[in-house]
Amino acid sequence: MTLQYIVEHLSVAFGAVTGALAARGKSIDLFGVIVLGLVTAVGGGTLRDLLLDVPVFWIQDSAYVVTGFVAALLMFFSVRMLQLPNGILQVADAFFLAFVVMLGTAKTWNLGHSWPVCIVMGVATGVAGGILRDVLCGQIPMVFRSHIDLYATAAMIGTIVYLIGSAWHPKHPSNLIAGVCTILILRLAALRWRIRLPEFDPGSEH
Amino acid sequence: MTLQYIVEHLSVAFGAVTGALAARGKSIDLFGVIVLGLVTAVGGGTLRDLLLDVPVFWIQDSAYVVTGFVAALLMFFSVRMLQLPNGILQVADAFFLAFVVMLGTAKTWNLGHSWPVCIVMGVATGVAGGILRDVLCGQIPMVFRSHIDLYATAAMIGTIVYLIGSAWHPKHPSNLIAGVCTILILRLAALRWRIRLPEFDPGSEH
Amino acid sequence: MTLQYIVEHLSVAFGAVTGALAARGKSIDLFGVIVLGLVTAVGGGTLRDLLLDVPVFWIQDSAYVVTGFVAALLMFFSVRMLQLPNGILQVADAFFLAFVVMLGTAKTWNLGHSWPVCIVMGVATGVAGGILRDVLCGQIPMVFRSHIDLYATAAMIGTIVYLIGSAWHPKHPSNLIAGVCTILILRLAALRWRIRLPEFDPGSEH
Repeated sequence: MTLQYIVEHLSVAFGAVTGALAARGKSIDLFGVIVLGLVTAVGGGTLRDLLLDVPVFWIQDSAYVVTGFVAALLMFFSVRMLQLPNGILQVADAFFLAFVVMLGTAKTWNLGHSWPVCIVMGVATGVAGGILRDVLCGQIPMVFRSHIDLYATAAMIGTIVYLIGSAWHPKHPSNLIAGVCTILILRLAALRWRIRLPEFDPGSEH
Repeated sequence: MTLQYIVEHLSVAFGAVTGALAARGKSIDLFGVIVLGLVTAVGGGTLRDLLLDVPVFWIQDSAYVVTGFVAALLMFFSVRMLQLPNGILQVADAFFLAFVVMLGTAKTWNLGHSWPVCIVMGVATGVAGGILRDVLCGQIPMVFRSHIDLYATAAMIGTIVYLIGSAWHPKHPSNLIAGVCTILILRLAALRWRIRLPEFDPGSEH
Repeated sequence: MTLQYIVEHLSVAFGAVTGALAARGKSIDLFGVIVLGLVTAVGGGTLRDLLLDVPVFWIQDSAYVVTGFVAALLMFFSVRMLQLPNGILQVADAFFLAFVVMLGTAKTWNLGHSWPVCIVMGVATGVAGGILRDVLCGQIPMVFRSHIDLYATAAMIGTIVYLIGSAWHPKHPSNLIAGVCTILILRLAALRWRIRLPEFDPGSEH
């Protein structure tokens, strides 16, 4: 439980960092950076909790807001000094995606919801924050683009692995681990070998 | 009741199709098409249910999600073969708009809300999905543009017809039928004769 | 209480006017102007109430919707005749920002929430409507830009002043007055002397 809490805070902090990074080159000020950081960090879980009609996680435990705020603030002031290598960012992102998607799926499953709802909520927890961030930056969400290399698809397959496991052995921790590993492996493999979903462009020839 | 359920699923499927079509020419991949499809299909009803604080309809009955998902998926793979004539799309759209707006209005009215809230919820059920779709695609919502030819206005007049009828004969089915017909006739007439709302452009002369 | 109710309606009306003004020069029609007006006027409070899981204020008392609707409608038809001086708009905006932020903070505080949640809700009540308006208009939110001259920052410092006062003398009206004055003075001073937050632009030199 304590390990989960620490990883949850790390994932909020990391989300805030990627949200802040999205503000580069757009004449966005400190407040904008903090909002983009917080929205990326807690947006997916907030949407999930609103839709499921359960208390929003960061309103119950506002330590998440503080973590996201501090992470975005530190990013704002350190970005000129820091050189974050893209590779490390992507591996960390894959890890937190896997973790956050699995927690969202498990929360929904434990509330007794059906498979399709669990899949939607798991994926939404992982990608909705980034979608909101991109919309606020005036861009088509990155996760809708094929050059993202299996982001939401990896999340979705991971939730399905978890759900199959949960139908077999309900509440067994190996379901979560299997789901996390599936997402991590798929995402990293997709990054390594540029595995992509087909694009939707009826005008062009294949 | 069964007829209503079938038409509801058809309207979700149709929403998903129009959402998927909006992805054309934007380098959006399969996942993006499915999200745009689902958001267009269930976005209006989701916003309505969140605002009214009732359980979200597709979380209670996840068959709606499956319908929207399958419709967007089929659209993705069939769009190269299919030639959907614009005229048929617009007539189908007018029909589902009328249907969805009336259901949203009736749901709100049956919960005991006031006229202004019923009008907002009825119109929002009909247009919010499309607004979300356009925002996700990085465009000013189509329904805000005068060349749409009385879309939301038709919806609003239909809800008012329903509410006047309901004040007279509460729960009488003819109220719904009158509302649906009002929206259908207004929308199709507006398409036929290019009836439009005035634009807001203080800079230009009239 | 009656004075508060009047100022609340004035702030909704003013929000609707600024929302309508944002539609200029974008080929947006009457319906779009009304939606932009309503979203700007009630968007922040709606987000706050959804997140706090309390009934949405304009669904409980739909007079707010009517006020916002009428204000946007009047703006639509009078904008060609009216010449609203920018200075007066900004001073009125600062006043309503201060008022709305303080009401949002007090509502959250009175529900027993923690400091970070009160700060987020206070600021969100004041700025989320404008953020939604800008996203619907296809723009990066104005409040994220440094040339706004301490908008959200003034709001945040005002909520902190209120919270410090409330920790000392709970429910004392002077807390609200101190918060309102803080926001007003900071915002007007920032406008007068062009006080700004630093921008986030790692590429450029300082």
